[in-house]
Amino acid sequence: MDQVTIQYLGNKPRVKNPILIEGLPGVGNVGKLAVEHLIEMLKAKKFAEIYSKDFPPQVFINTDGTVKLVNNEFYYWKAKKKNQRDLLLLTGDYQGLSAQGQYELVETILDVIEDLGVKEMYTLGGYGLGHEIDKPAVLFAVTKKTMVNDIRKLGAVFRKNEPGGGIIGASGLLLGLGQLRGINGVCFMGETPGYLVDPKSAKAVLKILSKITNVTVDLSQLERKAKEIEAIAQQLHEIETQAKDRPDELRYIG
Amino acid sequence: MDQVTIQYLGNKPRVKNPILIEGLPGVGNVGKLAVEHLIEMLKAKKFAEIYSKDFPPQVFINTDGTVKLVNNEFYYWKAKKKNQRDLLLLTGDYQGLSAQGQYELVETILDVIEDLGVKEMYTLGGYGLGHEIDKPAVLFAVTKKTMVNDIRKLGAVFRKNEPGGGIIGASGLLLGLGQLRGINGVCFMGETPGYLVDPKSAKAVLKILSKITNVTVDLSQLERKAKEIEAIAQQLHEIETQAKDRPDELRYIG
Amino acid sequence: MDQVTIQYLGNKPRVKNPILIEGLPGVGNVGKLAVEHLIEMLKAKKFAEIYSKDFPPQVFINTDGTVKLVNNEFYYWKAKKKNQRDLLLLTGDYQGLSAQGQYELVETILDVIEDLGVKEMYTLGGYGLGHEIDKPAVLFAVTKKTMVNDIRKLGAVFRKNEPGGGIIGASGLLLGLGQLRGINGVCFMGETPGYLVDPKSAKAVLKILSKITNVTVDLSQLERKAKEIEAIAQQLHEIETQAKDRPDELRYIG
Amino acid sequence: MDQVTIQYLGNKPRVKNPILIEGLPGVGNVGKLAVEHLIEMLKAKKFAEIYSKDFPPQVFINTDGTVKLVNNEFYYWKAKKKNQRDLLLLTGDYQGLSAQGQYELVETILDVIEDLGVKEMYTLGGYGLGHEIDKPAVLFAVTKKTMVNDIRKLGAVFRKNEPGGGIIGASGLLLGLGQLRGINGVCFMGETPGYLVDPKSAKAVLKILSKITNVTVDLSQLERKAKEIEAIAQQLHEIETQAKDRPDELRYIG
Repeated sequence: MDQVTIQYLGNKPRVKNPILIEGLPGVGNVGKLAVEHLIEMLKAKKFAEIYSKDFPPQVFINTDGTVKLVNNEFYYWKAKKKNQRDLLLLTGDYQGLSAQGQYELVETILDVIEDLGVKEMYTLGGYGLGHEIDKPAVLFAVTKKTMVNDIRKLGAVFRKNEPGGGIIGASGLLLGLGQLRGINGVCFMGETPGYLVDPKSAKAVLKILSKITNVTVDLSQLERKAKEIEAIAQQLHEIETQAKDRPDELRYIG
Repeated sequence: MDQVTIQYLGNKPRVKNPILIEGLPGVGNVGKLAVEHLIEMLKAKKFAEIYSKDFPPQVFINTDGTVKLVNNEFYYWKAKKKNQRDLLLLTGDYQGLSAQGQYELVETILDVIEDLGVKEMYTLGGYGLGHEIDKPAVLFAVTKKTMVNDIRKLGAVFRKNEPGGGIIGASGLLLGLGQLRGINGVCFMGETPGYLVDPKSAKAVLKILSKITNVTVDLSQLERKAKEIEAIAQQLHEIETQAKDRPDELRYIG
Repeated sequence: MDQVTIQYLGNKPRVKNPILIEGLPGVGNVGKLAVEHLIEMLKAKKFAEIYSKDFPPQVFINTDGTVKLVNNEFYYWKAKKKNQRDLLLLTGDYQGLSAQGQYELVETILDVIEDLGVKEMYTLGGYGLGHEIDKPAVLFAVTKKTMVNDIRKLGAVFRKNEPGGGIIGASGLLLGLGQLRGINGVCFMGETPGYLVDPKSAKAVLKILSKITNVTVDLSQLERKAKEIEAIAQQLHEIETQAKDRPDELRYIG
Repeated sequence: MDQVTIQYLGNKPRVKNPILIEGLPGVGNVGKLAVEHLIEMLKAKKFAEIYSKDFPPQVFINTDGTVKLVNNEFYYWKAKKKNQRDLLLLTGDYQGLSAQGQYELVETILDVIEDLGVKEMYTLGGYGLGHEIDKPAVLFAVTKKTMVNDIRKLGAVFRKNEPGGGIIGASGLLLGLGQLRGINGVCFMGETPGYLVDPKSAKAVLKILSKITNVTVDLSQLERKAKEIEAIAQQLHEIETQAKDRPDELRYIG
């Protein structure tokens, strides 16, 4: 096994001028939720798995009792209409644990998609605000200046110096290292409190994305999940409020 | 010295269709206790040592004053009866310190056992509950769905989504990376509080395992150790209870 | 992509007997502020970028919405007068995250500058005092004993055993590893509280440096920045003082 | 520069059947103090330097203002009498920062000494007790059982299961990895509180060692240093005692 290993599950998929959509774990798991939803709704087909020595040394246990080595997975979906394009979808259990591992993972991803003819990619993630947000905006960043206006028109937001810390992890690195290879891309970041997984933010990101791909999927499942999460957040908030109402001295004397 | 070095102590052992039993340090040291007990009771013979640059840079001091570089060790045992099979036993001082080191160690282990004809392996570990347990169950996970029913019949337990975090370390990785090479295996996880080494849990695991190997060993030594540990746990519990009974303000004013 | 990658933006610059001036992020960001100021004032031209797998896996977002993979950057400036020499200027977003990464980055930098004929280098950094300083002195260290007197005459200060911890990071490593290759150099360290970025210290360093390079640039921009930082430091100091004036018991009982 | 680089300062030294004495930084700096003292007293000659990418990225500043890249250094000393043997002495600024780095450093050291004909080595270190000790004993461990009695007769002490954690770092690894190459050795560990550098413990170690090497050096300098350290320890102890005498409530209310 190499540092990073790509394992095709059969023949490479025959795709034409495909675009990549990436969503790996991250803030609010926004990107992962979004891409997993797409994969499920589109019944996309898995065609490759990526293993890395910089993923945790861990297997998950499937519901049927079998183990599954943690990995990243590539799926594809063939366009159904004339205004659509073939899609490659990437999601996974983890990003690399170290800087080194992240760079090597992304280089392997770029090798795979270049080989399959990708010239355009969309990376999805969350933008952690640290506070509740009612209507999450979707921020973005691009590899080429000329793309900014087109993306803005779709409803995504560009705010100077936001996120101030740039983009950390695969969503940013795919654009940054892709840029050096001449692959263009956009990173969409859904605003999110960042405390819990955030299906609401994932939904906001997918809405924007569908205007590019002309692929529309039912989002009601994400809405249901979002309501569940809101209920949990509400409960956590109540517990916290009660704790604050207890006067301080009680903690020492009572 | 390579990243991971395998050093045979003489000729490779002549084993026929052997099965691997692995128990390295981990939660409650369940796996290590179990395999060390087997090695001792069966008088299994050491045939190889594994060194890794990702083990701690450390030697232990033997009771005769000599040093011993920390390692992992392979033993073998030849079947005595018709319904038994040759055994390879693996235990050791440490697992790799980093993710990288864990993957490389397990790849080397798989190289060794493939070379010796292993097609089946049993990895032993603990499942940390974080609370006391009277009769530890033995959970399991497998590499192939068809194995689940057979293992269940032996008295091992399958609970959906348990352990929720999957299996971390060599016991999981052997199955996960073995799966990619077509080697089948089962991981047995004895329930354990996980605070102290747990010979009781190790005993529970060995009882299940003996139904597969048809190799029965005297377990009274593990029972004795289990009683010693229970006495220590009882003492720790009393100290803790006394501390809780002291009113809080005493810590600040008294 | 190699561990560390150097990417020229076109032809290598035609420079004659150039000297290197390095300022990467560090204590008070003294070195980085100084070299960035030089680059801006001299309108130096970027000729190469360095990427490393040991930089954080991160892109920054430019003000025009495009991403920029974090890197180090080389600039050059051609001498305008007879008593000046061509300059190579190095600054960047980060130093390597690990010891390993730092050594490899500096080795690559040395490869680049040796190739361009550098025989002399000046590395700029801060010397963190942990307290306010009115007039920051500029300490130094050299690769060759015979250089000490010349540098002292320029107004830089040599105090035995200071900094006691030596020099950590690229500024020190360039001299240390350069020494082994026969490249001479001086490290200038501006005294700084080290709490905030310190343009005042950067200015002090540049004043000394200009006596070597005979290149004088307008420093008023650094002075303006220094005043802004002083105002912020003053505010922080007031907040801290107020907190100290609140009697201790209030924190527990009030 | 390789991961670990050995750099000879001229020709390799002509030594005959030499023994290695190692003392790198560690608990109480016992080994380093001892070997540095030997080097100074014997006026041993430096013949090689070792650099490693796993040392901190740091230079020290010599008293003459020049920088010195952190390293390990080899010295040699030629026997003066018939009952003496040539000595190789190894000390340095650091041990490797990571497990990996420690293994690689020690492998390089073994390559060098094997090349120079070393068949016997003495590694020096401290055994941290965590409490004051009046007359530090010197514990030991060996590579071959037959050596135990001879070493015991010199006044070194062997206590079963001490140190319980074995030996961590170069002193242990040299024996452990040396053992695999057939090089024999003894590790001497001077008891030390372990809080401060401990010249008294270093002296105890050197006394034992001199019975093996038949090389006696003046130890009065170590005695002087030991008295200085004892004075500092005494001061620290008084400060601590005073702090304990202040009633607890004062910290909260007074």
